[in-house]
Amino acid sequence: MIRDQRSQGRHAILGEIRRAGSVARVDLARRTGLSQATVTAITAELMGAGLIEEGTALAGSGDARRGRPRVGLQIRGAAHLVAGAKIADRSIVAAVADFTGRVLGEATVPLSGRVQGTEALARDIAAAAAKAAEAAGTGLAGLSGLGAALAGIVDAEAGIARWSPALERRNAPLRAALEAATGLPSFIDNDANLVAMAELYFGEGKGIADFLVVTVESGVGLGIVLGGRIYRGIRGSGAEFGHTKVQIDGALCRCGQRGCLEAYVADYALLREAALRPGPHPGDPQAGMAQLLAQARSGDPMAASIVARAERIFAMGLANLVNIFDPQLIILSGELAQHDYLYDEKVIAMVAGQTVQAGAPPPEIRVHRWDDLMWARGAAAYAIEGLAARALAGLGEDAA
Amino acid sequence: MIRDQRSQGRHAILGEIRRAGSVARVDLARRTGLSQATVTAITAELMGAGLIEEGTALAGSGDARRGRPRVGLQIRGAAHLVAGAKIADRSIVAAVADFTGRVLGEATVPLSGRVQGTEALARDIAAAAAKAAEAAGTGLAGLSGLGAALAGIVDAEAGIARWSPALERRNAPLRAALEAATGLPSFIDNDANLVAMAELYFGEGKGIADFLVVTVESGVGLGIVLGGRIYRGIRGSGAEFGHTKVQIDGALCRCGQRGCLEAYVADYALLREAALRPGPHPGDPQAGMAQLLAQARSGDPMAASIVARAERIFAMGLANLVNIFDPQLIILSGELAQHDYLYDEKVIAMVAGQTVQAGAPPPEIRVHRWDDLMWARGAAAYAIEGLAARALAGLGEDAA
Repeated sequence: MIRDQRSQGRHAILGEIRRAGSVARVDLARRTGLSQATVTAITAELMGAGLIEEGTALAGSGDARRGRPRVGLQIRGAAHLVAGAKIADRSIVAAVADFTGRVLGEATVPLSGRVQGTEALARDIAAAAAKAAEAAGTGLAGLSGLGAALAGIVDAEAGIARWSPALERRNAPLRAALEAATGLPSFIDNDANLVAMAELYFGEGKGIADFLVVTVESGVGLGIVLGGRIYRGIRGSGAEFGHTKVQIDGALCRCGQRGCLEAYVADYALLREAALRPGPHPGDPQAGMAQLLAQARSGDPMAASIVARAERIFAMGLANLVNIFDPQLIILSGELAQHDYLYDEKVIAMVAGQTVQAGAPPPEIRVHRWDDLMWARGAAAYAIEGLAARALAGLGEDAA
Repeated sequence: MIRDQRSQGRHAILGEIRRAGSVARVDLARRTGLSQATVTAITAELMGAGLIEEGTALAGSGDARRGRPRVGLQIRGAAHLVAGAKIADRSIVAAVADFTGRVLGEATVPLSGRVQGTEALARDIAAAAAKAAEAAGTGLAGLSGLGAALAGIVDAEAGIARWSPALERRNAPLRAALEAATGLPSFIDNDANLVAMAELYFGEGKGIADFLVVTVESGVGLGIVLGGRIYRGIRGSGAEFGHTKVQIDGALCRCGQRGCLEAYVADYALLREAALRPGPHPGDPQAGMAQLLAQARSGDPMAASIVARAERIFAMGLANLVNIFDPQLIILSGELAQHDYLYDEKVIAMVAGQTVQAGAPPPEIRVHRWDDLMWARGAAAYAIEGLAARALAGLGEDAA
């Protein structure tokens, strides 16, 4: 069943206003294919609901010919404040944003435990959101919703974390725990999906219908955007790029299977090889990686060989994505400082040699460096999308 | 830009009638979310254009309570006759179908050459379509359109075969050549996409929004259906599953790259290994494969090892599709007799051991055996879709 036409029109118009920043009614009609009368009716509804507002007069030829200045419609920032939280390895980074996605406050709090129970994690997230809300001059009660991004397999629709390295148990009802801990409508998703959402709303993917986002942190993540929406699969276990197999009976992965991309590319995989020749940082993966990369750069053959294999396998994985999706754009996204060697031009050049030659230029692979705050911003965007969908649903059915 | 609402409504209603076979107006409104008034207006337009017709009265409670029998709307088969053609290894299989997709005639003609020029291939396809039209009691002039399915990289939108084993040159303007040879509006696409379309219109994918179709012939094909539509990528080179890499620096592929799935799974890959111990059929791949498989079944260790590796790599490739797409269904589709060993329950069971454990049952993998005629039927469905889109566009813009 498709959404009824009025509802579809509302989503199209709100989405177009968000993309444009500020847009005149006449341009909304042109860009959405809706009639001028429909645009007028729907924008009146959205203004009535407090979701959009009239901004400043726009320059341009539109209605100016008729002597009226064109008024730009924009998202009403004050409509809702939301929090977004990214659960990182040892901490939670939270941001509070207005309904346009503008960040008003941020905070980082340490995790009580790197692996913990559902309620304990929810309390940590609530504390981070409260601290970010305080930085924005309000409190949890001043917010309308919360989005949270975590690594692992997340059934976003059901609000259940099927598996996450941050959680003790499988099938954790994290959304319900967050709603209990914060009193706010809450939304959870896989962190790679939410970094893709950040790219879609604020980043390199703005205005692009089909693109992929690949992230390397302690694992390898993939976000798939098709037709301007996050593609999630049926069980919430899609886009598990890090666990696609690149070698039959290959290296053992943390997931228990063999030959996963991660088992060749993730930090632990490189350190496992480097352990053949122990260094001075046995208990500190970050220092161990820094040492390994420094050795490789200085020409140490064993270190160089370890890094070179990771680069080649990563390029092979990216080539497989190009071969399957033939996307418009691949964004290598995230806090990349630590994994810069994987995002090197040399690696990107290797991709072309492993993709099908289509007689047309291969898709662009663009590197976008950012920090945990941007992941939190993606989580906030997810909360904005969830709240907007609820608000639009509240406007009722097709009257036609 | 989205389609205007009226146009969207027309597509939704025509699609729903096609899926349902026969459906009452009241149920169309329920299933599409359109208002009863809109359904009445659009169905009147579609009847006026000769695309749909009223069929027999339906049983059921709908309007019967008010004493009127419910009338089923159905696709008007006579609206258009179309031809679909599948270019196989040595022949072309063509079918002529009515606008419902019902096959009225079929024909097989040998290819003039296995690799030939664009005009020569277009003439062969035209001859096959003409013969199928004759079998249906008409001629090329009695048809409204032609769809053709070929292996390789096809830019469906531009109508250009970027590369195909059936064509001498890259970037062949095959659609234009077909229109010149037949005088019919023509549509071309990759054959795996059109077998996916056959599954979507007539087969196991009917009514399923997101599914994948994997085919094994001389190569390995993939069709991706997302949101009830074929996903084609930007350059027409997506879904190149056969050339995803399963081994770095692996076996040499016909495409010139190394480690492609095909280089382990296609007939030539198995025969290449079997050539270590030449058999009685050096110039006959089909006989060579039959011998190899018979040897494997009878317990010959070398033959069994060759077949077992192909099975394991094929399962690994399928697992990668599950890991990336998490689809509702994977259909293993095509004329499978020759490749039955790859579609064995044992192989399908191997897939589960290489997919991410999501805490929910893995997607179903369903085997659907059919012959070249069904590929031709998929090509006919593609022509039907193309003609329907043109007819709907001719109905004009949103009047609201």
